[in-house]
Amino acid sequence: MKPVNLKQLAEELNLSIATVSRALQDSHEVSAATKNRVRALATARHYEPNAYASSLRRNQSKTIGVVIPKVTNHFFALAINGIEEAARQCGYHVLIYLTHDDYAREVSIIQHLKGGRVDGILMSVASGTEDIAHLKSLKETTIPLVFFDRVCADIHTAKVTTNDYESSYQATEHLLAAGCQHIAHLLISNNLSIGRNRLQGYLDALQAHSCEQDPSLILHGTMDNQHNLALIEELMQRRPDIDGIFASVERLAVSAYHVCRKLGRAIPQDVKIVGFSNLESVSLFDPPLTTITQPAHDIGREAAKILLRAVEKKRAVLSSQSLVLNSELVRRRSTESV
Amino acid sequence: MKPVNLKQLAEELNLSIATVSRALQDSHEVSAATKNRVRALATARHYEPNAYASSLRRNQSKTIGVVIPKVTNHFFALAINGIEEAARQCGYHVLIYLTHDDYAREVSIIQHLKGGRVDGILMSVASGTEDIAHLKSLKETTIPLVFFDRVCADIHTAKVTTNDYESSYQATEHLLAAGCQHIAHLLISNNLSIGRNRLQGYLDALQAHSCEQDPSLILHGTMDNQHNLALIEELMQRRPDIDGIFASVERLAVSAYHVCRKLGRAIPQDVKIVGFSNLESVSLFDPPLTTITQPAHDIGREAAKILLRAVEKKRAVLSSQSLVLNSELVRRRSTESV
Repeated sequence: MKPVNLKQLAEELNLSIATVSRALQDSHEVSAATKNRVRALATARHYEPNAYASSLRRNQSKTIGVVIPKVTNHFFALAINGIEEAARQCGYHVLIYLTHDDYAREVSIIQHLKGGRVDGILMSVASGTEDIAHLKSLKETTIPLVFFDRVCADIHTAKVTTNDYESSYQATEHLLAAGCQHIAHLLISNNLSIGRNRLQGYLDALQAHSCEQDPSLILHGTMDNQHNLALIEELMQRRPDIDGIFASVERLAVSAYHVCRKLGRAIPQDVKIVGFSNLESVSLFDPPLTTITQPAHDIGREAAKILLRAVEKKRAVLSSQSLVLNSELVRRRSTESV
Repeated sequence: MKPVNLKQLAEELNLSIATVSRALQDSHEVSAATKNRVRALATARHYEPNAYASSLRRNQSKTIGVVIPKVTNHFFALAINGIEEAARQCGYHVLIYLTHDDYAREVSIIQHLKGGRVDGILMSVASGTEDIAHLKSLKETTIPLVFFDRVCADIHTAKVTTNDYESSYQATEHLLAAGCQHIAHLLISNNLSIGRNRLQGYLDALQAHSCEQDPSLILHGTMDNQHNLALIEELMQRRPDIDGIFASVERLAVSAYHVCRKLGRAIPQDVKIVGFSNLESVSLFDPPLTTITQPAHDIGREAAKILLRAVEKKRAVLSSQSLVLNSELVRRRSTESV
């Protein structure tokens, strides 16, 4: 059985299409008796309002778009759960777009979203993004934008992040306290303020403890995990004095484990490792990995709440408020003093 | 600057709205010269077609919906990447809905999608789903449906799965060959054919090797990981003779590791463990976990390709074709003979 449309309902009820439509929208212009008749038939005939027609009429899609680099990163998987939780409470659906950390994809997604498919955008910037013209162009629309985690400092809007600088500072101090003297820092990109903040936390902690800041201990990884393994191996062979590794992203910590295993460097005896990670199974690693764990779920939920308040109030431009939620250093065996 | 609409473009060009619209759609009814004039102004004025208006006109959203239990499961995170790859090649966007394995949410999502927001649906059924009336009701619409991984046997449509029965049979034989005599099987739900197939593979392998099929060795986990830890611990204390564990889902394998550690049962000396998993970091576990690894990316991509062919051909009902891609048993230290 095909679903009926408004016209068919109207014919069967001997009412105008406009009256049926108003009745279904619970308009005050229609009597209760008529509303009941209309609703009863709509239910019996499995009437479903056309989402596009409804959106066009209301000029609202009841959908928010989430633009993120990937879902294989556990941080984003958990953040999505938080976003979904907030969106559901307000009756919104969530549309997820993946940039795969690719600038061109991000531009194309934003271009598409500008067409009005969503009522608001939550975004974590691709690490390949340098030119931000596409993000600036969102200002020409009425679609509010909220950044979370990987924010774009030069865009004036609300941002939800974690205390990246302080966490990195703390992680570096933790390695120093465990006896490390030559600490490598592995990062992916410093286009992003998040990467720069984490790097700065590391550098400042070294300086505060009168440790050498050695640029040759800072490794810039790529999108390619195989390539990263080779880069890390090359670094550790060139600098056999490395006794601590601070990875600013989860997959670089995982790669560092693989390289240590390959080179026969024992963790934590020869090398201590700490990394940003939301992977639950790090406690099963050999040895369990010390992590900086971000409040991923909460970051997603709070960012969605700010966005949804703006959507409901039809405010396109949000003030540059920043909400900073704290990450936690979880000490495990990979950084134990031995 | 606010974006212009069709009417404003038409006024500025001194053309009718219909002509401007046709020009932007590259209609043969409009001269090349006019098209060029229209396009030049549309670009200069940042004209963006309204996605909903376009969708309504074409009666196509150029979007496919993906209904899955969660993204924190690595299988689904990888499958989404495969779906995205196929969708992008055809110019489609992907809308991801999470059921959190909850039947009521799944019903509400399907109800919403029936409104015409997407051109087709890819789905992996929630483990809480028993009544399938909501899925049957999709037949009343023109929206094609393709199942992947967790399929619903009673719905007549295309399905993309892996060889669950054979993989389970092989995993169980692998444990038997390693010397296990009392193999527990951990599963979440046997509402789903996927769970039933995995259970049957385990049972048949035991029978083929003249091993006891002991119902008290089959543990039904829940959605609650804390509860599962307690259930597994209770099982292992009640049955200290358990020397092998076959987990039909990733998080039960992870829970089994935690319980073995807590009870001081050494892996693989006292207990050998194998589990379905797509988690990359299992090779860093202590000891590395033997897995049945599903071709998650390919399952997603192939399911999306089948769906998109149906969408393009405007075929609502797909034949009950089944595409079965093979999983791989990856032997690691957790099942080594010692």
